[in-house]
Amino acid sequence: MVVPTFIGSKDNKRIKDLKKLQMKKYRKKEERFLIEGEHLVEEAVRYHQRLHTVILLEGCDFALPIPEDIEMLTVSRAVMKTLSTLDTPPGVMAAVSYVAPEVGEDNTLLLDGVQDPGNLGTLIRSADAFGFKHIILSHDTVDPFSDKVLRSTQGSLFHIRLETVEPTAAVNAFQGIVMGTAIDGAVLLDDTRSPKESVMVVLGNEGRGVSEEVLSLVDQKLKIDMPGDSESLNVAVAGSIIMHHFKA
Amino acid sequence: MVVPTFIGSKDNKRIKDLKKLQMKKYRKKEERFLIEGEHLVEEAVRYHQRLHTVILLEGCDFALPIPEDIEMLTVSRAVMKTLSTLDTPPGVMAAVSYVAPEVGEDNTLLLDGVQDPGNLGTLIRSADAFGFKHIILSHDTVDPFSDKVLRSTQGSLFHIRLETVEPTAAVNAFQGIVMGTAIDGAVLLDDTRSPKESVMVVLGNEGRGVSEEVLSLVDQKLKIDMPGDSESLNVAVAGSIIMHHFKA
Repeated sequence: MVVPTFIGSKDNKRIKDLKKLQMKKYRKKEERFLIEGEHLVEEAVRYHQRLHTVILLEGCDFALPIPEDIEMLTVSRAVMKTLSTLDTPPGVMAAVSYVAPEVGEDNTLLLDGVQDPGNLGTLIRSADAFGFKHIILSHDTVDPFSDKVLRSTQGSLFHIRLETVEPTAAVNAFQGIVMGTAIDGAVLLDDTRSPKESVMVVLGNEGRGVSEEVLSLVDQKLKIDMPGDSESLNVAVAGSIIMHHFKA
Repeated sequence: MVVPTFIGSKDNKRIKDLKKLQMKKYRKKEERFLIEGEHLVEEAVRYHQRLHTVILLEGCDFALPIPEDIEMLTVSRAVMKTLSTLDTPPGVMAAVSYVAPEVGEDNTLLLDGVQDPGNLGTLIRSADAFGFKHIILSHDTVDPFSDKVLRSTQGSLFHIRLETVEPTAAVNAFQGIVMGTAIDGAVLLDDTRSPKESVMVVLGNEGRGVSEEVLSLVDQKLKIDMPGDSESLNVAVAGSIIMHHFKA
């Protein structure tokens, strides 16, 4: 049984250090990030993420067993409010390092410059739903460990092997069929059957799409038939429709 | 040729009145809303929305013909910044009243309590892409005329007939097959063929799903097969996958 330390002041050095993890720079330096709320902390424990600190709001309880060797803090509502990005601060938060699960030769999602945190989080959630257990991010994709991304994933991040790799290298190294979204020279998704091999789906930036360099390397260019008047789909929607089509 | 009035002060009464349209209460009262950026203003002109005021940043131009009888303002960067919700204020904004286009007996999307502006905007964009030209919102669905919704729609709102109707009344009045997302007693989307009749797709609140009352009225309960480890999909993703399946 870990006995928690109580912290009631926002100016406490430990709290100030934890709060820095709201910034990408510090997340990168410390190789850890903050998660908020019971569901995310539960998922982190269940899926063997490396917990460093569990932060409980005073009067709140957390049901899951927490390893002996981690830091336990109980904090006042004011302290929780300063650590949280939510309007209503949660009962529990944690500082965690991401541990990528081992996955087989699975279907893969490659994101070439996705910028919106909500889109990235939603794509991670959909990839998890449709068995795309491996996600590769280009260096210019938005940071997957921000509060907005984590919230949109609903915990799916911890089920997925996430890596940052240069997109052309990732496409060249993939053992299977690579499909990239494009407008010119693309076949309709509805006319495309699931191949026997694993599939890599490549999605691009919200404005520019997949880069020309990467598109020149894919096996198949894909587009989604849109009989209506919209010119394009949201990238998380397009990616989810394609992953649903090729689901395991 | 309309000669624009120049306004250089944020404290100008006209600017203060326009800024009030950032709030739902005033949008409702005035029956108009603000749109930001060239693409949305262009779409509003092309799709015959009722323009009241066009606001140009000084030094900027707007290419489309603007009717003679509307108010034209040219404003300083500081004024544009106060009217805009964007970090970088756009070159053009407008105050507009929504004019619902006439649509036939088309496929319909019914939203029963969707709360997130990004989800609503994305669903409107996907509905437009897949020919669901009629969208019905419950009274407790988020306001479709906020900046966040409008931005996510990418202008698709102006192609869609949007109405607010009590969901059970809308289901009862629909001439065609009504499909609602559910977990219990639902058939898999992949096992469902497009019927000959028009389709109404019913989606629910992000947390609660479609209400029991509405679900008891639908012809068919649907769910999306998820072979992976995610417990659920984002509502905009789920809705888009279903509309793609039943697209015109």
